[in-house]
Amino acid sequence: MRGPVTGDPLDRSRFPVDPWALRERRYEAADLGTTETLFSVGNGYLGLRGNVEEGRDSYAHGTFINGFHETWPIRHAEEAFGFAKVGQTIVNAPDAKIMRLYVDDEPLLLSVADLEEYERSLDFRSGVLTRELVWRTPSGKRVHLRSRRMVSLAERHLAVMDYEITLLDADAPIAVSCQLLNRQDGQDEYHVKDAAMGSGFDPRRAANLSGRVLQPSVAWEGDGRTVLGYRVATSGMTLAVAADHSIETTDAHEELTSVEDDLAKHVFRISGTRGTTTRITKVVSYHTSRGVPAVELVDRCRRTLDRVRDTGIEPVLQEQRAWLDDFWARSDVEIGGEANAALQQAVRWNLFQLIQASARAEGAGIPAKGVTGSGYDGHYFWDTEIYVLPFLTYTSPSFARNALRFRHTMLDHARARAKELNQHGALYPWRTINGEEASAYYAAGTAQYHIDADISHALTQYVTATGDTAFLGREAIDILVETARLWADLGFWRETAGAGEVFHIHGVTGPDEYTAVVNDNLFTNVMARANLRSAVRHLRALQERDGEAYARVLTRLELDEAEIDELSRVAEGMHVPFDDNLGIHPQDDDFLSKEIWDLANTPPDKRPLLLNYHPLVIYRHQVLKQADVVLALFLQGDEFTLEEKLANFEYYDPLTTGDSTLSAVVQSIIAAEVGYGELAEGYFTSAVYVDLADLHRNADAGVHVASLGGVWNALVSGFGGMRDYRGSWTFDPRLPADWESLTYRLTLGGAV
Amino acid sequence: MRGPVTGDPLDRSRFPVDPWALRERRYEAADLGTTETLFSVGNGYLGLRGNVEEGRDSYAHGTFINGFHETWPIRHAEEAFGFAKVGQTIVNAPDAKIMRLYVDDEPLLLSVADLEEYERSLDFRSGVLTRELVWRTPSGKRVHLRSRRMVSLAERHLAVMDYEITLLDADAPIAVSCQLLNRQDGQDEYHVKDAAMGSGFDPRRAANLSGRVLQPSVAWEGDGRTVLGYRVATSGMTLAVAADHSIETTDAHEELTSVEDDLAKHVFRISGTRGTTTRITKVVSYHTSRGVPAVELVDRCRRTLDRVRDTGIEPVLQEQRAWLDDFWARSDVEIGGEANAALQQAVRWNLFQLIQASARAEGAGIPAKGVTGSGYDGHYFWDTEIYVLPFLTYTSPSFARNALRFRHTMLDHARARAKELNQHGALYPWRTINGEEASAYYAAGTAQYHIDADISHALTQYVTATGDTAFLGREAIDILVETARLWADLGFWRETAGAGEVFHIHGVTGPDEYTAVVNDNLFTNVMARANLRSAVRHLRALQERDGEAYARVLTRLELDEAEIDELSRVAEGMHVPFDDNLGIHPQDDDFLSKEIWDLANTPPDKRPLLLNYHPLVIYRHQVLKQADVVLALFLQGDEFTLEEKLANFEYYDPLTTGDSTLSAVVQSIIAAEVGYGELAEGYFTSAVYVDLADLHRNADAGVHVASLGGVWNALVSGFGGMRDYRGSWTFDPRLPADWESLTYRLTLGGAV
Repeated sequence: MRGPVTGDPLDRSRFPVDPWALRERRYEAADLGTTETLFSVGNGYLGLRGNVEEGRDSYAHGTFINGFHETWPIRHAEEAFGFAKVGQTIVNAPDAKIMRLYVDDEPLLLSVADLEEYERSLDFRSGVLTRELVWRTPSGKRVHLRSRRMVSLAERHLAVMDYEITLLDADAPIAVSCQLLNRQDGQDEYHVKDAAMGSGFDPRRAANLSGRVLQPSVAWEGDGRTVLGYRVATSGMTLAVAADHSIETTDAHEELTSVEDDLAKHVFRISGTRGTTTRITKVVSYHTSRGVPAVELVDRCRRTLDRVRDTGIEPVLQEQRAWLDDFWARSDVEIGGEANAALQQAVRWNLFQLIQASARAEGAGIPAKGVTGSGYDGHYFWDTEIYVLPFLTYTSPSFARNALRFRHTMLDHARARAKELNQHGALYPWRTINGEEASAYYAAGTAQYHIDADISHALTQYVTATGDTAFLGREAIDILVETARLWADLGFWRETAGAGEVFHIHGVTGPDEYTAVVNDNLFTNVMARANLRSAVRHLRALQERDGEAYARVLTRLELDEAEIDELSRVAEGMHVPFDDNLGIHPQDDDFLSKEIWDLANTPPDKRPLLLNYHPLVIYRHQVLKQADVVLALFLQGDEFTLEEKLANFEYYDPLTTGDSTLSAVVQSIIAAEVGYGELAEGYFTSAVYVDLADLHRNADAGVHVASLGGVWNALVSGFGGMRDYRGSWTFDPRLPADWESLTYRLTLGGAV
Repeated sequence: MRGPVTGDPLDRSRFPVDPWALRERRYEAADLGTTETLFSVGNGYLGLRGNVEEGRDSYAHGTFINGFHETWPIRHAEEAFGFAKVGQTIVNAPDAKIMRLYVDDEPLLLSVADLEEYERSLDFRSGVLTRELVWRTPSGKRVHLRSRRMVSLAERHLAVMDYEITLLDADAPIAVSCQLLNRQDGQDEYHVKDAAMGSGFDPRRAANLSGRVLQPSVAWEGDGRTVLGYRVATSGMTLAVAADHSIETTDAHEELTSVEDDLAKHVFRISGTRGTTTRITKVVSYHTSRGVPAVELVDRCRRTLDRVRDTGIEPVLQEQRAWLDDFWARSDVEIGGEANAALQQAVRWNLFQLIQASARAEGAGIPAKGVTGSGYDGHYFWDTEIYVLPFLTYTSPSFARNALRFRHTMLDHARARAKELNQHGALYPWRTINGEEASAYYAAGTAQYHIDADISHALTQYVTATGDTAFLGREAIDILVETARLWADLGFWRETAGAGEVFHIHGVTGPDEYTAVVNDNLFTNVMARANLRSAVRHLRALQERDGEAYARVLTRLELDEAEIDELSRVAEGMHVPFDDNLGIHPQDDDFLSKEIWDLANTPPDKRPLLLNYHPLVIYRHQVLKQADVVLALFLQGDEFTLEEKLANFEYYDPLTTGDSTLSAVVQSIIAAEVGYGELAEGYFTSAVYVDLADLHRNADAGVHVASLGGVWNALVSGFGGMRDYRGSWTFDPRLPADWESLTYRLTLGGAV
């Protein structure tokens, strides 16, 4: 196991403790990639990385719109039947963050600027990113600058930003160039440097697209408004972005506008006088679609902008504050005790980024990096259901419902994929944007059939917590039944000595990707069993509640009583392997017969293992990328005794590298349950700081959304001891010694 | 199991029985791809597909030089550490076969020509491909044509061809355009149609190269000689081809020569008169190199051609005949009985193509398609060692030695690859041309570690049969030791109830590619044990024979007595799984616990399975692409009782699809041994006609070299009952009922 982090890993002279904001007091160019991620603002639909207003220096420019992607044919070096065909990559949307500043015609460039004061702050209650600094220009004039940036949580398509400039010493000409810049295809192309990655590749990062991606279809300006519209070359998606510009100043000024295919500029030239504060405001709207012509999207942008033009941005800021007040009132987690202020800040940053990743995803999933980076190509994984949805279900159930409805829209794709894989029912893609399997390495992708059970788990949890049986009966039951069908067809019955006929599931990969394509993966079998049981239970409940609706479901799904009985029989016949000698559950049939990886003697420069060893070498050993059995102990906790949990944790924990950020939070939860309090704290710290302290050295590619969600789980279910088993909620808190209290809020019952 | 073929599958009105030739009496365009393969001529270095002299119609033009390849970076859709990096693809060398004929300016085009007579014949004793036909031109003039083509077995770099033209009815202008044409990059580009393949891909075929591959560096003509020279763009290999042209006629004629980068033409224009026979001769030489400038290769071509210019082609034809007389004297296999003439012909075609694939390979391996096609990219696999080398070892040991020396030249590459895969010793690439692993799908490639044991097996067999201990001590022992080291490091000891410490090998793929990455694959373990034992045995023998040489080997390999003892201990501790219930050897640890594939209910349009099911679906079931345990029963036959062989055969045979052509020959051998005589015959027929009757519908991509070699094995070891176990040869023949006799020849003892 990777040694859990202890203590506060942040440099507090640079990032002072503040329970309600992430603040930065010193500009540093060395870790731009990370801080761009940390200071991202977004709403789950639109995300703006924390790039500086000036447009440079930058590590990775990023403006991401959830689900706005390009497709490309996956070329396999060696092709085989059923391999994923359609690659999907999130597109870097035109950059509207740019407000370049010139004083005496000299550009502000933070990396070389003489800064007398500097602070950047992301406020968790106002939802605004603010930068304030005093710049001493090359000619010695001091300029006070304050800029703000916000993506509206209340208005899905809206972002606002402003820039205040005050000359402190002397008059000077000022220019501010407000731009919309297509970086995806322009010269200033988006590019993640991978200097940190020695081995020259990193499968966790995004594939590059080649050729022009955004094809210009609209370029327009007038009345201080600039507009660009595009069509994505192959996927056919469309986008429009529009910006309104305004100025408040007593100084003389002029405005110039120009628009080209990849660049719209609105420039303010001000004859700045000492002491005068000039304020420039830029209001931006993005609209995207799967195929509506961009000109129509321009109309939508116009409507969004017109509303703000009428009122100014103050109401927008107030609305944001109110939205977040509401959010914190139902979602905050408080750790009691003065000594825990730093941790409190980290926890709130996690929760704030979590809601920024998910609030307005709506017709889309929640990407592994939210809308803060292009890591993992902007794809949706099981991260959403297992790591993020518990938080949404228990604090913002309507957002959880949206995420589950999105899976329902993908059901036909999942049915087709099951068929292609020779199975009945539905098989959800391991990674996707548009519903098609995009995992090019099936052993750690398509083979993770457990995605079906994960979705069903989240769905069951949502329905149980909210009582939203209407959604269940109308749509969601289809997911439960089709995934249950997959399991019944995928596995098979085999006579087992002493146990009669037992149901086995072969040839699957569990959550732990350091073992692939195995038989009877414990996690998969246990989760599949729960999937099957949930389908049967909810069918029976529906039958009792509303016979007509039940009949409609049977018809819609071509389902009959015999098949429902069979699903039940499969669930109860499911093989759950157990090793009597060790008193533990083998991760799979073969796991315990493998050679044990010598982690103690694996040098740090050989970590993470996936970047330093051939999969064959890794798969041959007992070594885990991430919790697998231990995750089952949490999600299906009432299926295991405490003694089993303890034995399993003690066996697997030392074999777990934590090379995945999905691991520490789970290890923390079970460590807390089985009595390893210090370990629980250590893993929790590793999770809560994974991005803030860049512990996995890839925060530059975006926040780790699963870890953000896992942090909430670790707080509520780990230290907070909350468990929910089919409508019964229990609480058995195990607080760290120096936590005076832990307060969390849950929303239960009451369908949304 | 695929039903074995019974009876004679050839249309004898078109392909008449002839024990010493393959003859074709009717031209057909429908199966051009197959007949181009069947009528190929080659010598293991140079191969010319049976394309018509006219250059069209053609299914796949092909001129292949063993090992002459281009490289390209393998792009994996999802990259991982240690994945193969360097793609290698055999290049279609400039085509020297072309002698286009025009009478009255009308081109001969067989697919539309009015043919009064037609016969094509590949003679196994003269080694010459002859075509003879009478063409009635559009204007009604009949022309008698006879052409011959031969690749010299005695002169590695030489091919000769001639064309005789006789106007039977009337005078007419005749033109013959003799060409050297770069088809790899020209407009008339080589392209295998894949109409037969419904699913749009076939991993058994070659990857395509894009961009110009052959970069022109020489283009010259003079004195009836044309020369072209090239450098391969990325691999840097070089090639020169030169042709001499001469004419014998009493008719008036002129000659015109032109040379461009991709085309050299030497045209004869003849004022043809009725009754006169005009003969045009083209003598061609190819030289290739890993990097010598093409101009230097031109000199080599010149020397080869000058020798023939002095003597004419008659001595070349005689030399060919003498070479083949010698070959048949030591290699022929005769099946007694009039009724078996057709089978006799098929057997000889197999042996003839086998020697055409291997005789002059020399510094190269023996590609899976010989030099008859670009299937499998021209790569070398284990096919050479397991399927072809027994034939060479027992009939042409010096060719076997060349093939094994080629593996020795790759040893450093294999050492580097072992290191990359985290192991000591040497790991040979599953598929390669230049020594680097080129298998882009590791589960059915790199994971086939058994390649190491296969090479050692062939080496051991060669040394035992020939007594060539000099080669062993000087070079080959290094292979035995380095591969043995790989096994000792790859596996591990585990306490096993009742058996003490047992040695296990995990995470490998056996010969059967319908199961991948398993633990304790029986074939691998048994072959690895033999590998380890052979290394120790030959070290000990060397120590006894020549203490100084032994000491040199220890120094060279940094080997000591303790390590040799450890190799021995590993061999004797090797786990050989056995299932007491079934009385059989499980193919691997998990095999018997899998669901059984329902082959009986798998429709023909879903065969072969690999083109119709995702690997995950196939791997999940008990179903075999090819013999696995059953192959071990043959290669390590003295390690199994007859009872075990019978039980294993009866268990695995019904599960074996035979989707690989490497399977039938092995099934035939063991069927013969365990008493399934009819099955043995059926499998043998399936193998001997695999190309002749295009049973796998991919003969167009080239001959199946492993099957060619397997046919000899099935004759000699199957029906002939020959076994060789460490220097003891036994013979226990089991002839089919209607075979009056079976005669085969072996060369034993006497180092080459």
